[in-house]
Amino acid sequence: MKIGIVGLGLIGGSIGLDLRALGHEVWGVSQRASTCDRAIARGAVDHASQDLGSLHPVEVVFVCTPIGLIELTIGRLGSHLDPATIITDVASVKGDLVARLTQQWPNFVGGHPMAGTAENGIEAALSELFVNNPYVLTPIETTRPRAIETVAQLAKELRAKLLYCDPHHHDRAVALISHLPVMVSASLITTCLGEQNPDILQLAQNLASSGFRDTSRVGGGNPELGVMMAQHNRAALLASLYAYRGEIDRLIEQVETQDWPGLQSVLETTAAGRSPFLKP
Amino acid sequence: MKIGIVGLGLIGGSIGLDLRALGHEVWGVSQRASTCDRAIARGAVDHASQDLGSLHPVEVVFVCTPIGLIELTIGRLGSHLDPATIITDVASVKGDLVARLTQQWPNFVGGHPMAGTAENGIEAALSELFVNNPYVLTPIETTRPRAIETVAQLAKELRAKLLYCDPHHHDRAVALISHLPVMVSASLITTCLGEQNPDILQLAQNLASSGFRDTSRVGGGNPELGVMMAQHNRAALLASLYAYRGEIDRLIEQVETQDWPGLQSVLETTAAGRSPFLKP
Repeated sequence: MKIGIVGLGLIGGSIGLDLRALGHEVWGVSQRASTCDRAIARGAVDHASQDLGSLHPVEVVFVCTPIGLIELTIGRLGSHLDPATIITDVASVKGDLVARLTQQWPNFVGGHPMAGTAENGIEAALSELFVNNPYVLTPIETTRPRAIETVAQLAKELRAKLLYCDPHHHDRAVALISHLPVMVSASLITTCLGEQNPDILQLAQNLASSGFRDTSRVGGGNPELGVMMAQHNRAALLASLYAYRGEIDRLIEQVETQDWPGLQSVLETTAAGRSPFLKP
Repeated sequence: MKIGIVGLGLIGGSIGLDLRALGHEVWGVSQRASTCDRAIARGAVDHASQDLGSLHPVEVVFVCTPIGLIELTIGRLGSHLDPATIITDVASVKGDLVARLTQQWPNFVGGHPMAGTAENGIEAALSELFVNNPYVLTPIETTRPRAIETVAQLAKELRAKLLYCDPHHHDRAVALISHLPVMVSASLITTCLGEQNPDILQLAQNLASSGFRDTSRVGGGNPELGVMMAQHNRAALLASLYAYRGEIDRLIEQVETQDWPGLQSVLETTAAGRSPFLKP
């Protein structure tokens, strides 16, 4: 197929690398000329331009810009495309955005390929980034079947695990397993950094090992990404945070009242309940 | 030297393996005859017995029983040992215990070799378990210099990183970087398990990836160990939990009021402040 990609960063670049390798012809658009050059040099696109108008030949467009630019991008794209062209996005929050984008462009289907690395930008793009990772499609009632089928087929070609769900369900699930962990983990770090006795702080730094390292990892990640998650998935994140505070309050009460059977029961639940969340 | 070890589990067995390899003669005591047999078969001890009286020839005793049995063990050991014999323990909580044990046995020095695996028991014992890991000694004013020097020398022979600190500072540091992470991480799991909509729960399980896996790891560990930490380090853990709840409250307020610069600032602090806690 003739594929367009707007935004040639980690996700857009990685989609391009794989789709080209599969025999598709790929047109890329980036705001920066240097990114266009690097995308061609890396083999992520066949053609690259700073001009959205260059996408007029394509049949499917992946919008891989930062989430805050998607509506603007699709608004500007419209005049350049045949109305039969299918547009999809890769945003990590779906919610009301899907309905708004579908109104803008009836051949739109929301998508979220869940893969990433700690790096950003075209240089971070990788082949086979999506293999065995979830690729969520979030059609709504008015989403056209042909749009769903076309993007689903491409996701399968990327060898991702295809899932379908309601856009709001997506946001609530992602708040629980992706956005809440960032806040939980960041708060662990700020609690440790808040230790007032410098001897104890230094001792804590010397004694910290794998438990601290793993629990604090996502809280020490990219600050801009954390803020963006919170901004765009605010309602679902708040609901998760309220529920989480309730769980912390329960543990505090158990330790305060020395309710050791109660604490044992919670920790038995977590020991048994974690594995369904882990990949086999 | 002539070394005694009471409690032949992961820690006691691993100390025995290394000290024997270094040329020390090791007497082991376990409550169970089968453990004594396995300790000899695995090369963790030269002599093994169920009788504390068998330790009368030794110069240093490592008490490696569960923390709740240390005082009882040292009380019973006393009548069998020359008063010049040095006793140390390996408990993960020190606090007031050190002063009480020093009263019981003036040649006592508190210790905490910080190493472990997910496994327990003599079969889990490993050579070189302590290499490059912290070994904390927690002398108090009345601790005898010869006792400190002797145990320090053995810890160095185990190639551990030797640290000295006040027993209460130890407990506060360990609460922050080891015991608090268990509670933080367990509460993440219970929050996810508490999702009332079964579709969203299943979706969360399908979508969870490395961020959830790492943040939830220590919360899904051994329940008995988690309860024991909370029981024995209750005051320091509660102080950490109160501070942590304050940090969660601050993040909730920032998300509620859409204070994105404030959230950005917190996440910049955590991104920069994590590395001093990580091993080089």
